[in-house]
Amino acid sequence: MEFMTGVKQKNTLEIKELIANDYTGRKIRIHGTVHTIRDMGEISFLILRKSEGLVQCVYEEGVTPFSLQEIREGAAVEAEGTVEAEDRAPNGFEIRLTGIRILSEPFCPMPLPINKWKMNVSLETMLSMRSVSLRNIRERAKFKIQEGIVRGFRDFLYGEGFTEVHTPKITAKGAEGGSNIFKLEYFGKKAELAQSPQFYKQTMVGVFDRVFETGPVFRAEKHNTPRHLNEYTSLDFEMGYIDGFEEVMAMETGFLQYTMTLLKREYAKELQILGITLPETERIPTVRFDEAKQKAAEKYNRKIRNPYDLEPEEEVLISRYFKEECDADFVFVTHYPSKKRPFYAMDDPADPKFTLSFDLLFRGMEITTGGQRIHDYQMLLDKMKSRGMNTEGMEHYLMIFQYGMPPHGGLGIGLERLTMKLLEESNVRETTLFPRDLGRLEP
Amino acid sequence: MEFMTGVKQKNTLEIKELIANDYTGRKIRIHGTVHTIRDMGEISFLILRKSEGLVQCVYEEGVTPFSLQEIREGAAVEAEGTVEAEDRAPNGFEIRLTGIRILSEPFCPMPLPINKWKMNVSLETMLSMRSVSLRNIRERAKFKIQEGIVRGFRDFLYGEGFTEVHTPKITAKGAEGGSNIFKLEYFGKKAELAQSPQFYKQTMVGVFDRVFETGPVFRAEKHNTPRHLNEYTSLDFEMGYIDGFEEVMAMETGFLQYTMTLLKREYAKELQILGITLPETERIPTVRFDEAKQKAAEKYNRKIRNPYDLEPEEEVLISRYFKEECDADFVFVTHYPSKKRPFYAMDDPADPKFTLSFDLLFRGMEITTGGQRIHDYQMLLDKMKSRGMNTEGMEHYLMIFQYGMPPHGGLGIGLERLTMKLLEESNVRETTLFPRDLGRLEP
Repeated sequence: MEFMTGVKQKNTLEIKELIANDYTGRKIRIHGTVHTIRDMGEISFLILRKSEGLVQCVYEEGVTPFSLQEIREGAAVEAEGTVEAEDRAPNGFEIRLTGIRILSEPFCPMPLPINKWKMNVSLETMLSMRSVSLRNIRERAKFKIQEGIVRGFRDFLYGEGFTEVHTPKITAKGAEGGSNIFKLEYFGKKAELAQSPQFYKQTMVGVFDRVFETGPVFRAEKHNTPRHLNEYTSLDFEMGYIDGFEEVMAMETGFLQYTMTLLKREYAKELQILGITLPETERIPTVRFDEAKQKAAEKYNRKIRNPYDLEPEEEVLISRYFKEECDADFVFVTHYPSKKRPFYAMDDPADPKFTLSFDLLFRGMEITTGGQRIHDYQMLLDKMKSRGMNTEGMEHYLMIFQYGMPPHGGLGIGLERLTMKLLEESNVRETTLFPRDLGRLEP
Repeated sequence: MEFMTGVKQKNTLEIKELIANDYTGRKIRIHGTVHTIRDMGEISFLILRKSEGLVQCVYEEGVTPFSLQEIREGAAVEAEGTVEAEDRAPNGFEIRLTGIRILSEPFCPMPLPINKWKMNVSLETMLSMRSVSLRNIRERAKFKIQEGIVRGFRDFLYGEGFTEVHTPKITAKGAEGGSNIFKLEYFGKKAELAQSPQFYKQTMVGVFDRVFETGPVFRAEKHNTPRHLNEYTSLDFEMGYIDGFEEVMAMETGFLQYTMTLLKREYAKELQILGITLPETERIPTVRFDEAKQKAAEKYNRKIRNPYDLEPEEEVLISRYFKEECDADFVFVTHYPSKKRPFYAMDDPADPKFTLSFDLLFRGMEITTGGQRIHDYQMLLDKMKSRGMNTEGMEHYLMIFQYGMPPHGGLGIGLERLTMKLLEESNVRETTLFPRDLGRLEP
């Protein structure tokens, strides 16, 4: 009888192994994809692309025992050769080829110059040929950093006593309603795709006190802008026993601090590839909604048109204000008008026209909405009534308050937007693997 | 100007802090929900439920300066008292109450005996009052262990050089088709909910060599069984440069080994609450599909009815066989018939009626399907043609092979099923927070 006993050592090496140990003068094997071939006359450089980066292999005409004509860009190969130190090569070494085994070949030449440092093609082209454009070193680095952000989120919250949950994305028709909901048939019933895990994460606060989820959310909004997606990844947390919504903001600040440290430590290579300087997160200013509006209007001589919400341009100006005044990349805007917040938002007892809520702006764009939620059953019923809302379809949500809930609050962070602003991109599609927007359902 | 500077120390303590330091004789504050009140005559025990477990608080009639009548089960409170060692209390300490602050009160008495060790209510009741039933200590422990499984999956794969990806769940109508797909309208186009991230994770192998995703998948199957869900969490990985599909099985074995160690180390309390003995993962037997079928048929005197697939009863018998023969809880069944595997499965060159694929059975049930995929563009076209499949709608998937893909393979693990079998539950709904099945769209 045969058995599986776990991961076996491969006979090929990874870059990190070649860096960690001295293989100079030794013959090794390595696999990768032929990223580019550079003919330098007597010798040629065959550059392999691996998950970890590039490896320079040296081919010497008349010496290396195979023909370079056989090797095509885009082929997956197992190369064999001797390691030599070479300061000008990536990671300080090169491999003098002694053999090559072709594992797989492309069917046609690359349609995009993915082996160039910058591809110089339109975003439209990049997205329509996504599987190819992502093979570019700079393009893929963005998504490695995105991984780091999600890792940071989870690791930080585990450390703070949060429990991860997985809640359903197909949900019953809810009372919140709205036009921005994707609808579907579910075995003869009307169902919807979840706009957020809001009700479920609140439910789970009654179980685990502190919970988080990282998953897809769906918004059928008809906005065609550089900042909207119709499906995105939401980093959500919700925490019980808070003394105020400031605790939620403090937790988000902690997450950002933790994550910047993680990125510096473990994603330095990608930060360097993209030339990114990480933002300051030690001190994040907070400002009340109406004060922020006022400050921006005064300093930049702009008329306030909508007193209940921030227009995108106002987000830009408020960010600019705090960048100029205290060199801050982030700013918490607090106490949004009750009118513009969902029914479950806790109104400010000091002035119920405002809520105990906040948005986090990062370099001119909202990346988080959060706040304290109503935890009292009667207060929730009253608020729903005052808004003319029906309790039908809300029985399960209301149940959590009937049987007791601690004071709690939480937030949702748009992962693609956070990545976008961190990398100083101008379109959220740049930092989305396979964006879904008004016109884009593929790839 | 005010600033957020990160997480602040609270004036309440958590259980882990009370365990890590000696607070004996000191006055502390702690928050939690009143889990139960036990009247013992002169004293009463007020048991607080916290995310980490239970805390015993002692109320002494005529001494403790508040009235116990004011406190209701299900209330969220901040208790104040003096810590005393007490071997019979959870975690070896109790708190002699000196004060209490009610943070929030329930509106009505608990509808389920959530403070009992076992609730003894039907699964139907548990699921219809999910937000309440999950507050039971044993119920929630299942989902803490589920968290550990996902953590183990991610941490192990990070260590093996995998990159996490987030791929869209709303997809264009694909050629694979089938009746088990949820359909929806996407701005006037026909769209579907992803049955699996299969095509996307293969795409990302061309970018990062090794990738994984943990996310929801959707199956409109009309099965009403203890093992089917219409939405579940899939743990998916896909790896390039494999020498054979055995490498995928070896990686899964490594994940299981890593995760059992993690559970033992960090989830011991929950394992103890549920009385779980973890399965052996050091050696997992492998057996060919037809051999497994044959062995089970012979030993248990059962006729083979369907030569192309395993019936649920056969999965049970094959598992039983390997439990009896080599005390194995897991068994890899390999080389499934090509007929029953998707078009992208790599056929066995030695006998193309079979595929280089596998299922992992765990205690009588399939929890994983995986295998090597076709990486050659022409081979894929030929296979699609031989099945009478159209390439229309498959252009983006085919593109990844046109421009070159390394040999690769991967798998998908049903998280709820793995949790179910690990906890020796008999229905997958027991290990799903909010199950979606033929009749259940709420809560």
